[in-house]
Amino acid sequence: MKLYDTERAPNPRRVRMFLAEKGVLDKVEIVSLDLGKGENLTPEFRAVNPMAKVPALALDDGNVITETATINRYLDEVFPSPSLCGETPLERAQIDMWDRRIELTGFFAIAFAFRHISGFFADRETVIKEWGEVNVKNAEKWFAFLDKHFAKNTYVVGDKFTVADITTVCAIDFAKVISLRISPEQTHLQRWYDEMRARPSYAA
Amino acid sequence: MKLYDTERAPNPRRVRMFLAEKGVLDKVEIVSLDLGKGENLTPEFRAVNPMAKVPALALDDGNVITETATINRYLDEVFPSPSLCGETPLERAQIDMWDRRIELTGFFAIAFAFRHISGFFADRETVIKEWGEVNVKNAEKWFAFLDKHFAKNTYVVGDKFTVADITTVCAIDFAKVISLRISPEQTHLQRWYDEMRARPSYAA
Repeated sequence: MKLYDTERAPNPRRVRMFLAEKGVLDKVEIVSLDLGKGENLTPEFRAVNPMAKVPALALDDGNVITETATINRYLDEVFPSPSLCGETPLERAQIDMWDRRIELTGFFAIAFAFRHISGFFADRETVIKEWGEVNVKNAEKWFAFLDKHFAKNTYVVGDKFTVADITTVCAIDFAKVISLRISPEQTHLQRWYDEMRARPSYAA
Repeated sequence: MKLYDTERAPNPRRVRMFLAEKGVLDKVEIVSLDLGKGENLTPEFRAVNPMAKVPALALDDGNVITETATINRYLDEVFPSPSLCGETPLERAQIDMWDRRIELTGFFAIAFAFRHISGFFADRETVIKEWGEVNVKNAEKWFAFLDKHFAKNTYVVGDKFTVADITTVCAIDFAKVISLRISPEQTHLQRWYDEMRARPSYAA
């Protein structure tokens, strides 16, 4: 398997952490692209992923799987232990529901804020500062939501570490690009975050 | 099971069509909410879904599953025949990858265009016309992308009807709210769309 990756971007990191938690990082060849230089926009890479995004997982039989959440769910099936996406239909649904909530509420707010305030992709998309500012506020609200959530839950989904914790910690760290950090009064979020940082997969 | 639903919104329709394709619409009690009146914003409904969104699937044991794609994947596990989400890890990955591409590229563009041009939710979110206009363009590009895709593929994922077709047809119909329709030269997209409209589930 080949993982098309890029340094410092949050989505590829979700896959690397996932592989690290499974103990199978060494089973995947990492191919690193420079998005700033547009290495994902070449015809060669569009032949791998027409959406021109990383991560993309190229299987040995030539099939390519893209979309971070999809890749992680696939990896959970081919490397089943330890389970990170759930072992029953209900568990899988609860974990996936939370993973999507984190993505669509938190991750997206941070990504929109970053792209529309920094203009990082201004060469390829219209930058609308006001939309960036709305999303800074949404990202702040999401941090506050998480703090309340972790007052009552050990992990994102109850008392078990899952893929949703990986998604969340990658989003929290990504928020550095909009200078948003856990505030001193968000002690529950900080408690959970310290636990995530202590896991060996954090450095993946 | 209870399905919290709303008329005319595209996401709940994805679940109703999914149930119709499985032939199990009658196994679910439908509870309809009026989003225009904010019936999803009440404390009662927030106790069901803290995200205040429909659809939400309340199971008989008290558990609630939200997020449309999650609900459909769960239903595919509990009502396995006919399979709409794939029968092997690779098939599930390919279908889920496409389902997400459709959602995140097409569905989101249409939803942002609608909300930021019509101001339908102006009482609860900041409306940014310029962001709406960017998304009208993205939605138009997505229609063109689909037309090319259906020149080479019978369905969204190769030659098999899947949940990704349901997601796509609900997005295409949703695009009426921004007056975007299949243009006369998009004959491949029209061919696929006519096939979708001919399925009994289309009216669900």
